[in-house]
Amino acid sequence: MRHGRHAAIGVFDSGVGGLTVLKAIMDRLPLESTVYLGDTARVPYGTKSGEVVTRYSLANAHALFEYDIKALVVACNTASAVALPALERELPIPVIGVIIPGAEAAAKVTRTGKVAVIGTPGTIASGAYQAALKVAAPSMEVHTRACPLFVPLAEEGWTEGDVPRLVAEKYLGAGLLDGDVDTLVLGCTHYPLLSSIIQAVVGPRVTLVDSAIATAERLATVLRERDLERLEPTPVERHYLVTDTPARFLEVGARFLGQPLSGARQIDLHVK
Amino acid sequence: MRHGRHAAIGVFDSGVGGLTVLKAIMDRLPLESTVYLGDTARVPYGTKSGEVVTRYSLANAHALFEYDIKALVVACNTASAVALPALERELPIPVIGVIIPGAEAAAKVTRTGKVAVIGTPGTIASGAYQAALKVAAPSMEVHTRACPLFVPLAEEGWTEGDVPRLVAEKYLGAGLLDGDVDTLVLGCTHYPLLSSIIQAVVGPRVTLVDSAIATAERLATVLRERDLERLEPTPVERHYLVTDTPARFLEVGARFLGQPLSGARQIDLHVK
Repeated sequence: MRHGRHAAIGVFDSGVGGLTVLKAIMDRLPLESTVYLGDTARVPYGTKSGEVVTRYSLANAHALFEYDIKALVVACNTASAVALPALERELPIPVIGVIIPGAEAAAKVTRTGKVAVIGTPGTIASGAYQAALKVAAPSMEVHTRACPLFVPLAEEGWTEGDVPRLVAEKYLGAGLLDGDVDTLVLGCTHYPLLSSIIQAVVGPRVTLVDSAIATAERLATVLRERDLERLEPTPVERHYLVTDTPARFLEVGARFLGQPLSGARQIDLHVK
Repeated sequence: MRHGRHAAIGVFDSGVGGLTVLKAIMDRLPLESTVYLGDTARVPYGTKSGEVVTRYSLANAHALFEYDIKALVVACNTASAVALPALERELPIPVIGVIIPGAEAAAKVTRTGKVAVIGTPGTIASGAYQAALKVAAPSMEVHTRACPLFVPLAEEGWTEGDVPRLVAEKYLGAGLLDGDVDTLVLGCTHYPLLSSIIQAVVGPRVTLVDSAIATAERLATVLRERDLERLEPTPVERHYLVTDTPARFLEVGARFLGQPLSGARQIDLHVK
């Protein structure tokens, strides 16, 4: 049966960032096969409008649905922030974004009830984290800031040294963590690569929350509830699809996945 | 007559960067109307493959050709580096890129015959500047370096202070200007916004070359040779087209054009 228990997990992102989420899924659900799509011909999403990001997200989802997938993980904060309702409407399988799991994880971590969120301009402007955090804990105080340079820094591999430290000081100063904010949500899948420098800048009293693990946990719950999990060890398949030529994805992606990628296939998406 | 003397100049770029070229064209050819297309739904081009950039460039060119244009200026170094032959093949009007004018300007400026070029990964990997400089002066010694963070810095408006200075020191050190290199080509239309900091880092013995003025000059020559220039003052039209919603383009674009933009219209391009 297509899209049943033996089908794979579909995961998409604008590029390599979502591989940090894929890694968490592979760790949490080692019996599940995965198909990952990185829309490298249109990356990044974080500086584009909600309208354009929704259009690209639907094209990604339809391409993955051609594969036999039983659930779709939107491993991109910007796409999760703006396109989740449209994706849920169009797909007859569970769709899981990274924002609600991240917000719920932050609500569990905070002791002071004051949380800061950093992300792309698109994610922050959408207000999706602010809304999800208020649902998770209505009395929560939420501060936000867009940090557009963190994505190119992570992609360039400049994750240590003076440049990322100065950039982090500039973004994370001036009021973002004032009062007794004790939790900082890394609201972009690229940011975990910068977590050492971010932690050094914000100091030990602030706990960083990365939604990758929380998202993998939520996926496991959804599969179990719907009786869709693979129960017996069978050979897992790992497919990687990209919309630009694969060379750069394979090179940069290995840093994000924490292991070499087995290869990637280039596909065309027909989008306006 | 369509595409004749009274038609406009078409100009495209991946986003806002090409507005530095448009500005030079407006200064040099004040009688000419212009139609500018920024492919903001797919920006940036500089980290994408030649294959994808060529596909996007052809879509841009066809959209502009629907307007009555008599010449096309490719105001993007990456697109000029990889897509010029395909554009010249498909369009029955003159197509002018920024690389040959920039290379010719550098060949005129250098006294030592040693020139450095900085640009996006796509531009540098293409070898287009290296080839154009060798044509302009066969004995030229050419050094190159990709500087991927300069584009997001310019778009973020971080053009002064510690962060861009440190980034510039990192990119422009270590051998790029060794020996007696006396000329540095800004091989990306975003880089003129960073020229103060770049000049401060490379010191006064190195002359910066920005291809915008040279490109406008070449356009003027081509129009004159083909008897296509407007000779009498008639009201000029300025059209701006974008592929994402216009808000960010208008905001960031004003910095690049050096004056407010009159408004921009969103269009769809049907590309794979």
